[in-house]
Amino acid sequence: MNRVFNFSAGPSMLPLPVLEKAAAELITYGDSGMSVMEMSHRSPDYEAIIADAEKMLRELMNIPENYKVLFLQGGASTQFAAVPLNLIGRTGKADYVVSGQFSGKAFKEAQKMGYDVVCTATSKEDNFDHIPALTRDMFRPDASYVHICYNNTIYGTKYADIPDTGDIPLVADMSSCILSEPVDVSRFGVIYAGAQKNMAPAGLTIVIVREDLLDYADPKMPTMLEWKTMAENGSMYNTPPCYTIYVAKLVCEWLLSIGGLSEMKKYNEKKAAVLYNYLDSQNYYIAPVKKDSRSMMNVTFVTGDAELDKKFAKEAAAAGLKNLKGHRSVGGMRASIYNAMPSEGVDKLVAFMKEFAAANPKA
Amino acid sequence: MNRVFNFSAGPSMLPLPVLEKAAAELITYGDSGMSVMEMSHRSPDYEAIIADAEKMLRELMNIPENYKVLFLQGGASTQFAAVPLNLIGRTGKADYVVSGQFSGKAFKEAQKMGYDVVCTATSKEDNFDHIPALTRDMFRPDASYVHICYNNTIYGTKYADIPDTGDIPLVADMSSCILSEPVDVSRFGVIYAGAQKNMAPAGLTIVIVREDLLDYADPKMPTMLEWKTMAENGSMYNTPPCYTIYVAKLVCEWLLSIGGLSEMKKYNEKKAAVLYNYLDSQNYYIAPVKKDSRSMMNVTFVTGDAELDKKFAKEAAAAGLKNLKGHRSVGGMRASIYNAMPSEGVDKLVAFMKEFAAANPKA
Repeated sequence: MNRVFNFSAGPSMLPLPVLEKAAAELITYGDSGMSVMEMSHRSPDYEAIIADAEKMLRELMNIPENYKVLFLQGGASTQFAAVPLNLIGRTGKADYVVSGQFSGKAFKEAQKMGYDVVCTATSKEDNFDHIPALTRDMFRPDASYVHICYNNTIYGTKYADIPDTGDIPLVADMSSCILSEPVDVSRFGVIYAGAQKNMAPAGLTIVIVREDLLDYADPKMPTMLEWKTMAENGSMYNTPPCYTIYVAKLVCEWLLSIGGLSEMKKYNEKKAAVLYNYLDSQNYYIAPVKKDSRSMMNVTFVTGDAELDKKFAKEAAAAGLKNLKGHRSVGGMRASIYNAMPSEGVDKLVAFMKEFAAANPKA
Repeated sequence: MNRVFNFSAGPSMLPLPVLEKAAAELITYGDSGMSVMEMSHRSPDYEAIIADAEKMLRELMNIPENYKVLFLQGGASTQFAAVPLNLIGRTGKADYVVSGQFSGKAFKEAQKMGYDVVCTATSKEDNFDHIPALTRDMFRPDASYVHICYNNTIYGTKYADIPDTGDIPLVADMSSCILSEPVDVSRFGVIYAGAQKNMAPAGLTIVIVREDLLDYADPKMPTMLEWKTMAENGSMYNTPPCYTIYVAKLVCEWLLSIGGLSEMKKYNEKKAAVLYNYLDSQNYYIAPVKKDSRSMMNVTFVTGDAELDKKFAKEAAAAGLKNLKGHRSVGGMRASIYNAMPSEGVDKLVAFMKEFAAANPKA
C-alpha cells in the first residue's frame, strides 16, 4: 500500500480513515449481512445512513431549518439546467457572474435553454485571474436569482466575500470549496456542489435550497430535476446514489471528529499559506491569480515555459506528487489541496518545487 | 462475515467475488497509489477502467458497432424525460405500452412534458398480471418510437418476446433484466437501465442507443440529458460516476468468467424454475402472474391473507432471507432473484415456504 499525494482537481483524495472504514465494511455492513452497495434504499439500515449523512452535513455547515438538503445525481452540470428550470419562473429573468469556465457553462446553458439571462460581470478579458468586483446595483432588481461559482477550480480563484445581492436570491456552485471552511448558508438562496472534490466519490450532487424557492418550477420540466419533488421525497423519488451518500456520511463523520469546519479551515489555510508564501518568495514560478482572489483549494502556477511546465508535472509524478498538470484549457500547473490533502503533501510539493527550480535554470 | 440472502428488488445482491475484489483494492488500486474513488476521470488509469467496462459490456451483450454505449447518472426515471427529449423530434409523437408502474411513470412523464403520446395498450385493468398482447398494426405508423418496460420489477412480469414494431424504433427500459440473458440488441432503437439490480450499485444508468437516433434532440433541452453530447464525449461531458462504473466493470468481468449471458441465463432459468415449480405444485401460495408473462428476475406470490403475508416476510427475514416483502403498492411477497442470487438462496426460500405453510394452516 504505497499511497501517493494526489493533487487532482476532482475526483480527488479522500481521507485515509474514510477509505479504511469503507474497505473494512464493504462486504458486510454492521450486522446487516450485506454490503451498503446491496441495500434497498427503503430499508431501515439504509434510511439510517442517509438520515445521518443529512444530520451531520446540517451540523457541519450549520444549515438553517428553512433549507432543504437534497442528495442528487448528475453533477453541477445538471444543476446548470436545473437552476433556471426551478427558479426563473419567479420573475422570468436571471443574472450571472462569469468568473471562470464552469460559471460560463452555467450561463451558456441558461442561454441555450432560451431564458432571459445576462452576464452581469466577468473577468474573462483578464483570463479569469480575479473575481470581478460586484455591487448590489449591478444586478437587475427583478432578477429571479444571481448565479455565481464560489471557487473556480480551473483558474484557482475564489470570492473573498459573499456578494451582496440584496433581496435577490444568490445561487452558488460550491463544488470545489464546499466543506473547506464555515460559510453563512443563510446568505444564499441555493448552494449546490458536485461531491467529488471535498465530499465523496463522483456521482453525488448536494443541493441546499431555501424552502420558499421551491415553488417556481417549470411545470413541464423533467421531474428528476425538480428540487421540490426531491425535497418532498427525502431525495428518494427514485433510487438515490446510495453508496456514494454512504461515503459522504463517512467524510462528514471524519470532519466532525477533527473539530468541524472551523478546524478544517485552519488546516486548509496553513496548507495554502505554505504554497502561496513560497510562490511569493521567489521569481522562478509565477502565480497568475490576483492575491485578493486566491483560492485556498486550487493553487495555480506556471514557470512561463511550456516545456518546463511539462517536465515539472512529469518529474513531480515520478516523485509521488501526482496530477499537478494544469487544466488543458489553461496549461501550467495546478495543485488542488482539498481537505484530504495532508500538510505533508504540500511540504513535499514545495521541497520539490525548490529542487526543480535549482536543477532547471531558465535560459 | 455472516452474509444473508437478500431478495431486494434493487439495490440488490452483488456477486461476492466482485465485493471481495472491490474491498481488496479499495484503498489502493494496482500500482496507482490511490483508490479508484480518488482518480481523475481524465487519468490513464481511469480511462482504462471505463474503456474496459464498455468493451466487456459490448462483448457480453453482443452490441452492434452502430450503437453507442453511455454511462450516465439519474436512473431510469431521468430517462423517462430524456427519451422524449432526445427522440420525439423525429415525428412529434410517440406510443407507450403501460404494463406496470414504471412504464406508467414513463408515459406520465412524457404527458406532463406536453408531448403527443398515447398509451397503445395496458394491462392495468387486470392489475398488471400479464404483458398486453401487441401487434404491429396497433402502433401509430408515424410514432417517433414505441416505449416498453421489458421486465416489470413490481408485478413480476416480463415480455416473452420482443414486440414487433416494424420500422418504429423500440425503446426499452431493461433496468430489472439487463444482463440476465442474451438479448438481440439490434431489435431495439434504445435500451436503458438503472444499474442497481444486475450491474452495479445505484447511481449509474446505461443507455445503449442506435447512432441514427442521436439527431433528434430538442435544442433547448438540458445538455446533460442529451445522448449525443454524451456520446461525443465518451460519457465524460462532465465527471461520470467513476467508482460505480468501476464496480460495473468488475461485474462484467465476473459474468465473462462464468461464461457470459447464455450461461447466466441457464443459471437464472434454473433458479426461477425451482420457485415457479414449487408455486405451481401447491395451493397455499398464489402466484398472481399469468404463466406466459412470468419474470425470471422478480417472482411474486401471496398467501391471500395480508396478516400471513406480513408474518411470512418477518419470519423469513429472521431466517436470513431478507427483503421478501412485496412492493408497497402491491403487497404480498416478492423474491427478486437477480444474477447474484445463488441457487442456494432460492432452495432455502422454497424450504422456508414449505415450513411456513405447514406451521401456519389457513383458517
